[in-house]
Formats: sequence, C-alpha cells, structure tokens
Amino acid sequence: MRAVDLIQKKRDGKTLTEEEINFLLDGYLDKSIPDYQMSAFLMATYFNGMEKDELKTFTGKMMNSGDLIKFDGIDKFLIDKHSTGGVGDKTTIALAGLFASFDIGTAKLSGRGLGHTGGTIDKFESIKGFNFPQTKERMVEVINKTGTGIMGASDKVVPLDKQIYALRDVTGTVMSIPLIASSIMSKKLAVYADGIILDVKVGSGAFMKDLDMARDLAKTMLQIGDSFDRKVVTVLTDMDQPLGLAVGNSLEVIEAIETLKGNGPADFTELVETLVAVALQIKGDAATIEEGKAMVNEMIKSGKPVEMLKEFIGEYGGDPRLVDDYSLLPMAQNMIEFKAENSGYIGKIEAEEVGKSAMVLGAGRATKEDLINHGVGVVLTKKIGDRVEAGEVLAKIYFDEDINLESSIRLLDGAFEIVSDKVEDRNVILEVHSVNI
Amino acid sequence: MRAVDLIQKKRDGKTLTEEEINFLLDGYLDKSIPDYQMSAFLMATYFNGMEKDELKTFTGKMMNSGDLIKFDGIDKFLIDKHSTGGVGDKTTIALAGLFASFDIGTAKLSGRGLGHTGGTIDKFESIKGFNFPQTKERMVEVINKTGTGIMGASDKVVPLDKQIYALRDVTGTVMSIPLIASSIMSKKLAVYADGIILDVKVGSGAFMKDLDMARDLAKTMLQIGDSFDRKVVTVLTDMDQPLGLAVGNSLEVIEAIETLKGNGPADFTELVETLVAVALQIKGDAATIEEGKAMVNEMIKSGKPVEMLKEFIGEYGGDPRLVDDYSLLPMAQNMIEFKAENSGYIGKIEAEEVGKSAMVLGAGRATKEDLINHGVGVVLTKKIGDRVEAGEVLAKIYFDEDINLESSIRLLDGAFEIVSDKVEDRNVILEVHSVNI
Repeated sequence: MRAVDLIQKKRDGKTLTEEEINFLLDGYLDKSIPDYQMSAFLMATYFNGMEKDELKTFTGKMMNSGDLIKFDGIDKFLIDKHSTGGVGDKTTIALAGLFASFDIGTAKLSGRGLGHTGGTIDKFESIKGFNFPQTKERMVEVINKTGTGIMGASDKVVPLDKQIYALRDVTGTVMSIPLIASSIMSKKLAVYADGIILDVKVGSGAFMKDLDMARDLAKTMLQIGDSFDRKVVTVLTDMDQPLGLAVGNSLEVIEAIETLKGNGPADFTELVETLVAVALQIKGDAATIEEGKAMVNEMIKSGKPVEMLKEFIGEYGGDPRLVDDYSLLPMAQNMIEFKAENSGYIGKIEAEEVGKSAMVLGAGRATKEDLINHGVGVVLTKKIGDRVEAGEVLAKIYFDEDINLESSIRLLDGAFEIVSDKVEDRNVILEVHSVNI
Repeated sequence: MRAVDLIQKKRDGKTLTEEEINFLLDGYLDKSIPDYQMSAFLMATYFNGMEKDELKTFTGKMMNSGDLIKFDGIDKFLIDKHSTGGVGDKTTIALAGLFASFDIGTAKLSGRGLGHTGGTIDKFESIKGFNFPQTKERMVEVINKTGTGIMGASDKVVPLDKQIYALRDVTGTVMSIPLIASSIMSKKLAVYADGIILDVKVGSGAFMKDLDMARDLAKTMLQIGDSFDRKVVTVLTDMDQPLGLAVGNSLEVIEAIETLKGNGPADFTELVETLVAVALQIKGDAATIEEGKAMVNEMIKSGKPVEMLKEFIGEYGGDPRLVDDYSLLPMAQNMIEFKAENSGYIGKIEAEEVGKSAMVLGAGRATKEDLINHGVGVVLTKKIGDRVEAGEVLAKIYFDEDINLESSIRLLDGAFEIVSDKVEDRNVILEVHSVNI
C-alpha cells in the first residue's frame, strides 16, 4: 500500500477501507508517512468528505492513539456535556450544581481559553484555593462526593488529534466537518461517559457561522456516536450574541450562581434548563425535554443546586461562602458604563467583539503565555431585541488598569448595532437531535 | 502575509494576486514555507484550478527560478517542438532532417525515457559515436551548421519545477491541468525559441487519457504562451495506439529515416508533415497547414531531408552512412513473429502495453538505473482498422536474451484486441489550436 494512492483515492471521491485509513494513520504516527502527504490527504478530505465507515475508523484510530480513560468505582450515571465554544459560556459551572442535584455525574477533561472564548478551567480558577484533581483516584472521589469531576486536558489522551490538529491549523484544513467531528468525538469517546451532550454553538461568535454547517457537524457527530453505540444528543444553540450577560471569569461565576438561585438571564437559564433536561432524558428520568425542564425548574426553586455547588466548591478547596458573598471573588477596581449613542432596538451584539473587548482587559489570552486577570470583564445590560434610549447603559466594563481600556471600548462599540425597526427576540435553543436514546 | 491564508484563499476558489503567488513560491524556494503547506496548496489547486493571471505569475516564477537560456549568434528561425510523451514517438529524428531542409533551427533540451515511453536522447544514442553538445557555444555551432541543437536537460533550468514535481508525485497532485501546463511551459519559456509547437498526445497510451482533458491542457498552455507574448501551436494527436510501427531505439531511428525517404507509415508521415507545416506557418513561409504539408511533401520527394539528416549525424559524431546501411545500427540477434489467433479487424492496440513489451526486452527503463539495449524492440505489422486473418503476423519482436521474452509476449497479447465488425480508421491529427500566429 502506498500513501499517494490513498490520497488519490480520496481526491477522486472514493471511499477508503478500514485497512487503508489505518495504514495512513499508523504511518503518520510512526512517521513513515510525512506531514506533506497527510496535509494533501486532509485537503482532499476537505473537498470530498468522509463516509460513515471511514469516519468510524478515523475517529477510532484517533481515540486509540492514547490512553482510554474509564473511572472505576463511580456509582452515578455519567454525562459529558461539551460545548464547541462561545462567548459568555459559563454552563459547566451551573451544571455542577444541577447535575449533582439529580445525582448525575460528570467526568470531563477541560481546557483553558485562547482568543475571544474563555476556558472552563480559567473560570473555576477565579475561586481562590480551587484545585483540580490530579489523579484518577481523586477524580473518582470527587465525582462520588460532589457529582462533578473536572480535570485539565491531558497530552496522553488522543495525542494523534493534537498532531493532526496542529497540521490542519497551518494548512487551511481546519474547517472540514468530518475532521472537526472526528476530532471532537475522538476526545469524547476516549473518556467514558454514559451519555454525551454536544452543545453546538451557531452564529457570528462561534466556530460554526451558519445553521446548515452546524447541523451538518451535529449530524456527523451523531453518526460517529452511533458507530460506537453511544447515546449522543446535539443541541444547536445561538451564538449570534454572547450567552447571558456576563463575559469575564469571576463575573461569569457570579452569573452562574445567580442562575442556580433562579435569577439568571433568560437565555442562559433556558440553555441550562434544556441541557439538564436532555441529561434527564438520556438517563431515563424524564420522558421529554419539556418534562425535564419542569423538573429542573422545580429543583432550582428547592434551593438544592446552590447547596450542591457549595459542596463542590468546598471539595475543590474553595471557600463555599462565596456563593452568598461575591466579595470573596476577585473583582476589578474600576467600572465604567458604556452607553448608547442613539435610540432604537438592539439589532446585533457581535459575540466575538464582546469576547475580545473582555480579553484585551485581561479576561482572556491573546497568546498561550498571557496571564489571566480573573476580576475584569464586560457585563451587558441589553440583549438583541431590547429597546434602548440614547444615553442608556448598554454594558458595564470592569477593569483594573486602563492600558487597554480604549481598545476594549472600541471593540464593544463595534459589537453593538442599534436599528430603528423592532427586532424579533431570539431563541437560544435552535434544534435538538439525538441518537440511541 | 501567511501561507495558511493563501492556502485557504485557493481552497475557497478565490484568485491569488501576483504578490501572493510570489510569496508562496519564494517561500518554498527559501524553505520558509514547508512541503506540507505547499502540498496542501497544490491539492487545493487540483480542485480549484488557476486563473490566467495566476498561471502567468506561477509559470514566470518557475521559469525564473533558474538559468534562462538564449543562444546568441543563431541565424535561423527557431522552433521548439515538444511532445507530452507517447509510445513510438520518433518525431524529433525526422524533424532534424526536415526542419534543416527548410532552414528552421531547433534548440532544445531533451530527456531520457522512463517507463513505457522512450526518450529522445536514448533514441539518438542508438547511433555509435553520437555526442550531444556540452556547451552553449557548441550548441550555436551545430544549430548554424545542421539546424538541430539538442542537449541533455540541465538541473540549472527551472529547478523549482523539479522540486514541485517531486512533491506532486507523492501527494496525488500530478493530474492537475494548471500544474501540468505551468510545468511544461516554464521549461519551454526558459529556453528561447521563436515558436513553440506542443504535440499533446491523447489516448490510453498517453498522460492525457481523453480529448476533453487534452483540449483543456492545450488551451491552458496557449493561455500561458499568450501571457508571455509567444507564438504557440498545440497539436492534439492520437495515442490510442503506438505512433507508427516501430517501438525501440534503433528500430525507431530506421523508421524515421524511412519516413524521410517517403516510405514511412501513414500515421507517422501525417504527423511529421503536419508538424513541419505548422512550423512553416509560424515562420510565415506557408499561409495554411495544407499549403505547408504540400511543401513538406515536395521536399521529401527532393531527397534533401535525408541529406540534411546525414549532415546532422556526421556533425554529432555518428557515421552518416547508416542512413543508407542500417546494419551500422545496433540490431537484436533474434526475432520472433507474434501472430493473430483469430481473424477479424484490429480494434485496439494499447500503446502502453506495447511500450512495456519493448521496455521489458531492454528498450526502455523500469527504473532510472536500468541500462538500455538499443537494438531490441517491437515492430507492428498491423494498425487499428486493419483486416487480419488467424495466423497472420501482428508484430515482430526483436530480442537478444530471452529472459523477459515471455512477459514481453504476454504484454503484446494484452495490447491487441481483434473484433469481428469493421473498425473505422483513425486520424492521427485530432485538433490544432494556436495563439499569436
């Protein structure tokens, strides 16, 4: 078998066999197939896609390139909720309280943020003393105690994906649905969960800019999940504006807690309720998403999720009192209000621009080496569809040093569009699809 | 500027600017752009092609990557006739006699053969004592004396094409019309000629398997020629069967000489007459190809081309008497006849199989290191459309050692197809297109 023949086969739109895909990926792993052949294959795949069987082999080979993690001794039903990344996405924090309330466990590897989207690890690190588990044993312990096990991503899990992603990044082959789908799914499949929920963000602030492409990605991930006999639900959600109001690490922690208290922004509350309802459906505790959402609503009213979040924070080394006293979280020293110049309706809030306006203040990283300032960020006071009068506050900017304040304001200014005609409200949940549930 | 952005631009079907293509190729030359980015770019080009301006820049950059050769002090109108490669193509030998008769000069770099097609250099080396010019000065001298200057291909001419071709060869990006066209044209443009004639072979024995693709290649090469203000003619010719009857080095030399004597096979004679007629048209000596062909026909009858070929052979160090005494050429010691099993009409003679059947006897090289046996080969006695009776001779196999005789016969057997219905004769000239004449 020769790599060039397999590249040509893919180039000509033919389907590769299991043996052929294994030959390619084994060869890439042992360096007998060089980068220049893999990049030509990836570009041919960009144009011609992959069939279901090819995706199964490709994803399986990636998954098996490193450690497979299964936590033994866990007495809970495990759900892995994954988001493709957006601005203001503090979902994992709220789910920590809610999943535990329903006796659902989570065991996941999370990453740090880069660019305009924040990372879950960074958000939790707003909490002083917060320590992530470093061993399998500790993961099992925290999951059994608090429901939620989160640790940093490991180089030993799916190393082939890291290698291929680095190549895609420099060869114009990132935006390929089968390659994105197999990359995400190989990582989800490598760490065992009873059910996988994929929150696919759609819109100007997301990786997937339009609904068709997002739907295609969701369909492809479901197909892979089915190939591996796994329960998978994809939830397509709006990212044409930031999720909720707060963007910035401790600001997002506060918003997640407020949501567990029943005071969250409408869109974020809707998303959290839906994701937990989906989990309840996968677990078999709710027949429909509507039934699940009613259960979540009741649970929030009971106050239990806040208590479970406290337990979780305490177990991870943080001070649980911060749930009732936000002054225990790092806060920026200064705040200015960003005001509307004209009256009208909010037509657009570009999530990417809002994300960047928080990032330049120190809430995120432009490069991997940047340090995070957990207290800074932006809190919107208006969302798309809201009426606004000239001079009214659109957002509050929390900052420490004013070194990048000007560019933060400029970015925020570019994010908002105020129009004269009434704008329809948006629904955060766009579509839900599933397999094997 | 970043290579990844240019790859994505090509991937998305957009047109690259002159500056962008120069950035890519300069970067590839100075190794700041690695093979894996170039191969992704080439694969994107395979799918999305190149516009006229892109092709001009790409070809020009390749051309200028090495020495530009212009022979000073030549008093003749220079024509470079190039063939995309076929089986039994001894055209350059016949043209040596004919071009000189019409005072047309040729200055070209030729290659050796690899695989099922023979190389011009190998064919001339059938002639004992034959020496190619080694210097520019000697080229000018032989062109002024004999009309025909042929030297071996140089590493210093268009080195970038060699580099890119080697990469294309292992990344499934050989069969891309813009890449093939720019590769050929960069080499043609790097060695000056007043007119360029491109013989594009079409058919099962050629690189271009079908007429649409060959026409596309011809059109693209004409477009490039036009961008550089050059007179270019493309002649699409049939390679669904070998050209003429003889395949093998000295056997082809003999057939070329016989053609200059007026005794050549019909298809090869037609091709030679047309190519010379095209040259006369470019030079301005003939108004139409028909008029040119009549001039060629007269010239052959005059006997001058044979005399000019003798002068050429003598000047290159060979014995001119071989033109009248073929025993001065190397000849195989043995011959067997390959006979028809059934009666009918010749429906197919796969050129590639015939080429291989001569190659395995030693007429060509399977690998670059193989030595050539100039005396061996195959001479067909029938062509497509001919009536044949069972037991009649289809071809003669000339061989020295019988070590590969069996596989040669098997290859020949696979080449012929005899059918019961009458088959239409084929025309060797399929189409002629030109620019700037």
